[in-house]
Amino acid sequence: MCGIIGVFGHKEAAKIAYFGLYALQHRGQESAGIVVSDGRNVREHKALGLVADVFDENTLNNLKGHIAVGHVRYSTTGSTTVKNAQPFFVTHGKHTFALAHNGNLVNAHLLRAELERQGSLFQTTMDSEVIVHLLAKALRRGILEAIKETMELIEGAYSIVLLAQDKLIAFRDPYGFRPLALGMLNGGYIVASETCAFDLVQAQYLRDVNPGEILIIDENGLSSYQAVESEKLAHCVFEFIYFARPDSYIFGENVYVFRKRLGFELARECPLKTDFVMPFPDSGNYAAIGYAQKAGLPFEMGVIRNHYVGRTFIQPSQSMRDFSVRVKLNPVKEILRGKKVAVVDDSLVRGTTSRTRIRAIREAGAYEINMLISCPPIRYPCFYGIDFPSRGELIAAKHSVEEIRRYLELDRLYYLSLEGLLRAGGESNQKFCLACFTGNYPVPIQAGLSKEIFETQEPL
Amino acid sequence: MCGIIGVFGHKEAAKIAYFGLYALQHRGQESAGIVVSDGRNVREHKALGLVADVFDENTLNNLKGHIAVGHVRYSTTGSTTVKNAQPFFVTHGKHTFALAHNGNLVNAHLLRAELERQGSLFQTTMDSEVIVHLLAKALRRGILEAIKETMELIEGAYSIVLLAQDKLIAFRDPYGFRPLALGMLNGGYIVASETCAFDLVQAQYLRDVNPGEILIIDENGLSSYQAVESEKLAHCVFEFIYFARPDSYIFGENVYVFRKRLGFELARECPLKTDFVMPFPDSGNYAAIGYAQKAGLPFEMGVIRNHYVGRTFIQPSQSMRDFSVRVKLNPVKEILRGKKVAVVDDSLVRGTTSRTRIRAIREAGAYEINMLISCPPIRYPCFYGIDFPSRGELIAAKHSVEEIRRYLELDRLYYLSLEGLLRAGGESNQKFCLACFTGNYPVPIQAGLSKEIFETQEPL
Amino acid sequence: MCGIIGVFGHKEAAKIAYFGLYALQHRGQESAGIVVSDGRNVREHKALGLVADVFDENTLNNLKGHIAVGHVRYSTTGSTTVKNAQPFFVTHGKHTFALAHNGNLVNAHLLRAELERQGSLFQTTMDSEVIVHLLAKALRRGILEAIKETMELIEGAYSIVLLAQDKLIAFRDPYGFRPLALGMLNGGYIVASETCAFDLVQAQYLRDVNPGEILIIDENGLSSYQAVESEKLAHCVFEFIYFARPDSYIFGENVYVFRKRLGFELARECPLKTDFVMPFPDSGNYAAIGYAQKAGLPFEMGVIRNHYVGRTFIQPSQSMRDFSVRVKLNPVKEILRGKKVAVVDDSLVRGTTSRTRIRAIREAGAYEINMLISCPPIRYPCFYGIDFPSRGELIAAKHSVEEIRRYLELDRLYYLSLEGLLRAGGESNQKFCLACFTGNYPVPIQAGLSKEIFETQEPL
Amino acid sequence: MCGIIGVFGHKEAAKIAYFGLYALQHRGQESAGIVVSDGRNVREHKALGLVADVFDENTLNNLKGHIAVGHVRYSTTGSTTVKNAQPFFVTHGKHTFALAHNGNLVNAHLLRAELERQGSLFQTTMDSEVIVHLLAKALRRGILEAIKETMELIEGAYSIVLLAQDKLIAFRDPYGFRPLALGMLNGGYIVASETCAFDLVQAQYLRDVNPGEILIIDENGLSSYQAVESEKLAHCVFEFIYFARPDSYIFGENVYVFRKRLGFELARECPLKTDFVMPFPDSGNYAAIGYAQKAGLPFEMGVIRNHYVGRTFIQPSQSMRDFSVRVKLNPVKEILRGKKVAVVDDSLVRGTTSRTRIRAIREAGAYEINMLISCPPIRYPCFYGIDFPSRGELIAAKHSVEEIRRYLELDRLYYLSLEGLLRAGGESNQKFCLACFTGNYPVPIQAGLSKEIFETQEPL
Repeated sequence: MCGIIGVFGHKEAAKIAYFGLYALQHRGQESAGIVVSDGRNVREHKALGLVADVFDENTLNNLKGHIAVGHVRYSTTGSTTVKNAQPFFVTHGKHTFALAHNGNLVNAHLLRAELERQGSLFQTTMDSEVIVHLLAKALRRGILEAIKETMELIEGAYSIVLLAQDKLIAFRDPYGFRPLALGMLNGGYIVASETCAFDLVQAQYLRDVNPGEILIIDENGLSSYQAVESEKLAHCVFEFIYFARPDSYIFGENVYVFRKRLGFELARECPLKTDFVMPFPDSGNYAAIGYAQKAGLPFEMGVIRNHYVGRTFIQPSQSMRDFSVRVKLNPVKEILRGKKVAVVDDSLVRGTTSRTRIRAIREAGAYEINMLISCPPIRYPCFYGIDFPSRGELIAAKHSVEEIRRYLELDRLYYLSLEGLLRAGGESNQKFCLACFTGNYPVPIQAGLSKEIFETQEPL
Repeated sequence: MCGIIGVFGHKEAAKIAYFGLYALQHRGQESAGIVVSDGRNVREHKALGLVADVFDENTLNNLKGHIAVGHVRYSTTGSTTVKNAQPFFVTHGKHTFALAHNGNLVNAHLLRAELERQGSLFQTTMDSEVIVHLLAKALRRGILEAIKETMELIEGAYSIVLLAQDKLIAFRDPYGFRPLALGMLNGGYIVASETCAFDLVQAQYLRDVNPGEILIIDENGLSSYQAVESEKLAHCVFEFIYFARPDSYIFGENVYVFRKRLGFELARECPLKTDFVMPFPDSGNYAAIGYAQKAGLPFEMGVIRNHYVGRTFIQPSQSMRDFSVRVKLNPVKEILRGKKVAVVDDSLVRGTTSRTRIRAIREAGAYEINMLISCPPIRYPCFYGIDFPSRGELIAAKHSVEEIRRYLELDRLYYLSLEGLLRAGGESNQKFCLACFTGNYPVPIQAGLSKEIFETQEPL
Repeated sequence: MCGIIGVFGHKEAAKIAYFGLYALQHRGQESAGIVVSDGRNVREHKALGLVADVFDENTLNNLKGHIAVGHVRYSTTGSTTVKNAQPFFVTHGKHTFALAHNGNLVNAHLLRAELERQGSLFQTTMDSEVIVHLLAKALRRGILEAIKETMELIEGAYSIVLLAQDKLIAFRDPYGFRPLALGMLNGGYIVASETCAFDLVQAQYLRDVNPGEILIIDENGLSSYQAVESEKLAHCVFEFIYFARPDSYIFGENVYVFRKRLGFELARECPLKTDFVMPFPDSGNYAAIGYAQKAGLPFEMGVIRNHYVGRTFIQPSQSMRDFSVRVKLNPVKEILRGKKVAVVDDSLVRGTTSRTRIRAIREAGAYEINMLISCPPIRYPCFYGIDFPSRGELIAAKHSVEEIRRYLELDRLYYLSLEGLLRAGGESNQKFCLACFTGNYPVPIQAGLSKEIFETQEPL
Repeated sequence: MCGIIGVFGHKEAAKIAYFGLYALQHRGQESAGIVVSDGRNVREHKALGLVADVFDENTLNNLKGHIAVGHVRYSTTGSTTVKNAQPFFVTHGKHTFALAHNGNLVNAHLLRAELERQGSLFQTTMDSEVIVHLLAKALRRGILEAIKETMELIEGAYSIVLLAQDKLIAFRDPYGFRPLALGMLNGGYIVASETCAFDLVQAQYLRDVNPGEILIIDENGLSSYQAVESEKLAHCVFEFIYFARPDSYIFGENVYVFRKRLGFELARECPLKTDFVMPFPDSGNYAAIGYAQKAGLPFEMGVIRNHYVGRTFIQPSQSMRDFSVRVKLNPVKEILRGKKVAVVDDSLVRGTTSRTRIRAIREAGAYEINMLISCPPIRYPCFYGIDFPSRGELIAAKHSVEEIRRYLELDRLYYLSLEGLLRAGGESNQKFCLACFTGNYPVPIQAGLSKEIFETQEPL
């Protein structure tokens, strides 16, 4: 997963992009980058690490200009290298552009093979580089035509911001898999994956970039082109369930409120009589609040999060069981001892972390543990940008709910039904991608697609 | 403020101390240090920064030994220098010892002046160095006698762990101002400011080190000496209200539950009819939960905390109002818009941060804002280790509750009464230091005492 | 300028490459990189900085494999960015290769424009990337054919090592502008810019890679192909005069001895009666020794070099004249006071540093200063890899020897004649590029060529 | 060994001290520190590492004031810790002072034991801390009296600069073991271990601080007090032979010229007929030049020094013989092959490095190797500040010259005689400490003195 931002018309565009990436940090912690233009000169800075570590005062001051694009990247596969950090910054003839991409293409491997057959040379393993090559090839027909042609070729999920020297451009796949919002900032514009990036810089949320739309922002203002007709929407519902920040609006709705409704639906489908309701923080907080309110049960924070856990925590050399989980969350014995509890979490993927957490609250004295999951079982991998593991590792792909309950050593395990999820989505329920629950992929996946293309190497 | 830890009888004592300091990180973020002994050789490592930054695998592996003491230090005054990092490590004749101190002495300046008159040379400005000098001076009479003599001379708050080459020693002032707990770890012992440090390493909480007690732990096990009779207890109630971690037991009680009772008392004294109750996270969380439960109101998280805010956040160069507050907490507009809210926080010190936060939720659309503070107005500075500002900066020292309400632009402001606070403390209400609320200081403060002694310098 | 190294058949190929780059550090201090292959997997590490800073134990241990190529880069223009660090590492279809290049192409800008017209996308501003693209385009005809085709297209100076997954390949332009030596290392092979890289790892110097030759080293041993006939040689004589290390053999000859012969010729052409001869260290050392021996004069080290001068030296804020020169070299007053001296240096480029140094020895008390330069006046820029400034900045391009003498405030200035230089080169005098002295460029330079191509950017 | 500097009366005193330490870097590479005063406030910065790494622009700008003292420290024993970095900076009562010390006391252990008996607490293992304690104890009688009293108590070698808030003070032991020079800088004063520190900042050398003298520099100018009568001088002759920089004046004489005279004496005592003379660089350079001139032999640089060798060089994992020596110096085969050579070096201590270097030039083809050492055999340890190893490791303490010749695999080995050394010293020959050659220690050494005092630790 990734987070993207674009800024046009602010004299310190790089700083605005920096603040935006800060707010989008939850969408990717592996690398961060910003490319900035003053209309003539284009400068970049990117590196592995968190936004706060990648940039300092000096770096930002050197990124002079009024147009900026930025990117935070989530570690997807093993290849943690600064090469894969975005934005992609290239010079082609006399043109310079920089691209930041959120989402995953499903036909990147085919397009790349064809491009290489024609002599193109790739320097990374990212699908985003395919987009850059396609844009460059078509560039002599102008940037708008180039994007249109590219959009006709690429399939899958893409929300993209593009800095083209004196322009900021945003475009989005016709299904609208990933969010992309447009805001106004002191007469200029800002585009970001989530609106939480607007709040920090006091920008106003105008609307989403539409599925299939190309937005071009330059000295003449904002122009919109509907490049591809959008026949069917497929917003990623997992952005609501887990990924996005609760204070954001995505796909036009607030995430906190959506999650609370998931809790309401859980309480409707599975009302329990426990001593209290508690979340696994922070992802389960909002559905737990919703559940507690609807079920009329007290809300407690039965486990405490350590805010100082850094990225490089040293492990004990003699084994301490479940150490890395316990260092982040500590159960409050006084609250849990001898109690029947309802634990709410957003989802179960592999189940290993949850198993450890449940064991910890059991050892802290909880007498009966009921677990409520605010979405249906995840049975299918995502090819549009959510980094679920392969099917073999998805616990619900291979095991029944009862088997999972036993593995997690729970007294009860309940998943929200697909109907419940759709009810929580309200009128918007026709516009979601539900492939991870149902296996119905809105954009067909070709056999043999793996997420990192061309990993294997053959001798010359 | 500071956090301290001591370990005896674990072959990787430094790693245990490291994990303990990790859990105690909230007690001090300026510097961290560990001194370790294998019974013969004593090694140290300390530096400015968080525990996770100060130590790495290599550093810890070099700290070989089965006895360790550790310290995290809170930035109190301007003098951020590694010189002031603890544990204090000195060699005197053929003896080596290392001391970690939590608390503040009230007569350190007098003792230091006398020691200097006798020819002693000080290398820091910390009151803890006075204790080290006194111990060294009396050392020829044995370490136990040296501590007893020292305890007779020093006045104020001190919870101390002392590594004396082949021994771990813990001692505490007769009033018990600061917490200090004793635990058992695989047949060895562990001493720490709070029991949350025990949970992470799976140690068992035995009891507190008693006020006035000296504990000596060596190859022969644990010996206890009541060095000074404890006539009156003065546990810092602010440890319960704000400072300690909610999952800790301090002074024999769980912090989370204490805070919930503060919320109960608030609801009893000031029941409101609002749309919901919300905390200022994280310090207000538990009293807010208690208030919501007792008042029968929904609990919401109206502001969201950004978990990625680092220590060195770059400020916008053109002023963005209240930026550094907003970067940490973002209001959820969808939840707040048009609502009557009850906001619970643990305390008001200067009031400046609260003012900004209240303004932010007002701008997010809250219609009526009631604020409930889970302790009485703080009117007097603390000389025993809590780093309140000087009286002039304490908002309640100079202003009435009504004036503060107006300054904070609140619809209503309510402080828990002293009686309510004592009721929440239950039977334990005779054992607290309440000086910050009442001005009755259990240990007399001499005129002219400032927290950093001997800051001014004169020509020779 | 740059230094390159290739290793085949050593189980710690990356470490051998590292040691080799260490020995070649004088050829480039801006960035360093190594790419290594175990025959299947290819790994890289490169960064800005000196070899000793770019690599550590950990980095090298991760670079597992028996084939390696490495590169050190000299800062040529303003664009100090890790993007331009070599080796160039790309994956094309199922093939991976990495290329390290020393030298400069003269038609890179034309080739690049044509490649971009065909749709290729460039990610750096280096001429070396053009070679990579050409190789990739021709790769389907096999690597040997691809190199041959590429060598037919590119013009100028190139000594190249290429890692092609299971092969090490070396090739060199038909003029032999830049040195490239082949050695044997425990049954494996090593290729390097200079033989000083062989000494450190105790490899044996076999011969040079011939101009126009392609060497392919794989599991079957070494194969040689004369890809292009070499009609005329053009070894860079400036490598002998200044650039290479004195303990190296380049173009089959030892550098120290060559420089001593330059000193002999200087003494023959311009014998002086001074109190002693001294070099400007270290580049003038060997010609000064030769001069002193031939002229029968004492040799002294009249200026002392500070070995601790780091790369980031802080300047005095109130101006101290010539500070940055004096911090590196300090005159020995006791040796210089009241003396007639002959100062020998290798060359004069801009003349600014020499002026400062001469003034410093004048102020230290030298009574008469004669300067002897061990090559003719440099009047023309180099397009084959030596980073002379543009013609406008070459002092000898615009000024007579007498004018330069006056600018440098010398009592006498003498440049070795072109004939003297050729005599020092002995029988080898037909094989040198002398363009910087004569303006006769062996490979024609097209109008408008600058060293950094495509720096300017135009709006899309 | 160490280097010290003091500055008075320059508005950027810290920068001047920084440049001075840069020039004195050869005297100590372990740590560096500067303390500065504006007359009221005193600030310090010190850390492990080279001067260029310890200070940056920012650090220096924060060190505001017109008085500064600085120190570079040589690693003597294992205890590489920032604790031992100087200047020592303490506050005593209302007085602040900072001390930088070059030399070694011989009665520090006795003084320290007595001070500890009186209750003083030491925080380092350095003898310099004893001086600080003695000064502090006597301070109430004024700083001049305090220094006089201290000088009566301490025995051994000390050249000291002391910053006493509004004064710069310099004093030196009555034997004058270590150098200490006084210079003038734009109307202010500068004091430094060697005059090379004056050259860089363009200060003028006035005279040495006299043995037994106290210099006090303040707003009223410079005052001199002869605190202790100097009955016998004992300048360290090894400063001339090896330690000091060749461009410095120490003890009133130039080092380069002294070393050349050592070469003259060598040529007088042991004239050889070799093909040429070469030094082991850089320490042997000047005696080699002297020898070559007097003996009428050509001078060559038979081994080349790699200027890029950093402090942390990675070793080859499979053993490469003598690697760490070869990485620094590479023999020039073309010069050495088949030749009879005379190698000049300044001294032989352990002999291990020389053995490796000699083997390397033998392998490079030298046919006959004669080695000439420009001082007599070193048979006794130094207790006054030169870090010779213990007697057991000094090769000449246990072995005859013939045995050493065989160990080094030399054809001939010749040491300069004591008479030759004294002749080179000219009229100054009564003023040297020659203890390392003769065992006659000018200040008596007590039994059991080791260089690091109180290293062993006993249980309490």
